[in-house]
Amino acid sequence: MHENEKKQIEQKLKSVLADSPAQYIELTEAMRYSLLSGGKRIRPILLLRFFALCGGKGDGALSFAAAIEMIHTYSLIHDDLPSMDNDDMRRGRPSCHKAFGEATALLAGDALLTMAFAIAAETEGIPAERVTKAIAVLSECAGTHGMVAGQVMDLRFEHETPTQEALTVMVKKKTGCLLEAAAAIGCILAGAGEKTVALAREYAAFVGLAFQMIDDVLDQTADEALLGKPVGSDQKNGKTTFVTLLGLEETRKRAAEYTKKALAVLEEIGGDTADIKALTQELLIREY
Amino acid sequence: MHENEKKQIEQKLKSVLADSPAQYIELTEAMRYSLLSGGKRIRPILLLRFFALCGGKGDGALSFAAAIEMIHTYSLIHDDLPSMDNDDMRRGRPSCHKAFGEATALLAGDALLTMAFAIAAETEGIPAERVTKAIAVLSECAGTHGMVAGQVMDLRFEHETPTQEALTVMVKKKTGCLLEAAAAIGCILAGAGEKTVALAREYAAFVGLAFQMIDDVLDQTADEALLGKPVGSDQKNGKTTFVTLLGLEETRKRAAEYTKKALAVLEEIGGDTADIKALTQELLIREY
Repeated sequence: MHENEKKQIEQKLKSVLADSPAQYIELTEAMRYSLLSGGKRIRPILLLRFFALCGGKGDGALSFAAAIEMIHTYSLIHDDLPSMDNDDMRRGRPSCHKAFGEATALLAGDALLTMAFAIAAETEGIPAERVTKAIAVLSECAGTHGMVAGQVMDLRFEHETPTQEALTVMVKKKTGCLLEAAAAIGCILAGAGEKTVALAREYAAFVGLAFQMIDDVLDQTADEALLGKPVGSDQKNGKTTFVTLLGLEETRKRAAEYTKKALAVLEEIGGDTADIKALTQELLIREY
Repeated sequence: MHENEKKQIEQKLKSVLADSPAQYIELTEAMRYSLLSGGKRIRPILLLRFFALCGGKGDGALSFAAAIEMIHTYSLIHDDLPSMDNDDMRRGRPSCHKAFGEATALLAGDALLTMAFAIAAETEGIPAERVTKAIAVLSECAGTHGMVAGQVMDLRFEHETPTQEALTVMVKKKTGCLLEAAAAIGCILAGAGEKTVALAREYAAFVGLAFQMIDDVLDQTADEALLGKPVGSDQKNGKTTFVTLLGLEETRKRAAEYTKKALAVLEEIGGDTADIKALTQELLIREY
């Protein structure tokens, strides 16, 4: 099932970028370069699985699955820019601005973010009321008080060492919010009630924390070829992470605890949660 | 009426940025700095007037009016960045990255673009089908094959001198597309038919060309205090504009011709077009 989902997502992502006029081909090339570079597709998979869990039928949710991956990709492109994290490598290749130049990378990010909302708005086979609600959630989680706020806090922490509490707030926003959007949107599109949507968000918030903790661990311990970027870059950049605050072992332990909490919330939602449970556990024991 | 419209728009724009948590206050400050810096608000006014022309009632269109101004503002912030046009001044003040730094300006642009779609999706008092259609138009006009494509072409033209035809395509995308979105969305939200929407877009495309031609003229002839940025900057940057290709007089003449064409299309739409006609003519004879 996992492979079939991924295939559907890849196809959808390819199809939205099928058109490449010569007059600005560097834009669509840069978008394709970053969007089709073999990401794990966790957010779209999560979205599709919550859609299925809540009884959603048909492929209406696939457009939102693509949209959320486009937003994730734009955030990586902008995050890698010289004025931000200044990262030269991403997923084992030169980052977008290294391959296409800064201006084109900036605009490729802008275009991916913008296009995400067109793809979402053009969803077929789902009542328009659900679509507008899902767009609002997507935008709020990705925006000013969500993911972007997390980026701003992350930049602040280059100059001031955060407390564990402040780091947690930042990670909830930077990493958690888009996972929350994925889970919530899956439910909303399937017509689930507010209680279910709230539980799905709670689940995803725990997953977000566990996910970032494992990321922090992998930054120090992973195989560089698997990771696709230099190992130890957080430390090199003087970044405060869960590992620098808590150490490797304690961070691993807490990631396992948050995963457990996520699974407990999932249990509360009920239904056939086997696929989501499997994904949640995979994220904890991943190697990259 | 004009003043009342502007007041409503300013109030709406202020209200969407009312919340400023201390943890990332530089983000909302930067957004406010650029969004509330006294722009002409042409796009939102156009949107509201087409909404009224097509019989739209209530203030449901106001959220889209705010959204389109937020998108316009994000495009200016990103356009001013060092990797793009590298402009230090905007509307008589330091540009966003000069006031807040590059990273915060980049993220303020991202947040404005993202938030625009939340504001739009939360529109009340308008059927959801119209809202999703309007979001799709907004996103398409602002995105990959619209405004962002225009930006990419504009960057290309720093290295290669465009023909008049290529310059026209670029301007249609960079300047025209968002005006098209404004006019079209006003009609769509009011429930107008496809024929009217198409004519509104045609009108706005002509206005976009006339608007940019006047911009090119003003870049050479305006009072610097009124313009809010250095006069002659296009020439200094070696930019090809309608003025460099056609000269001042011919550019002015063509702007008047496009305005006439726009007014003829407006006539075809019919109804009480007096307010839109007045705006169209003001844009032609403006001094900044």
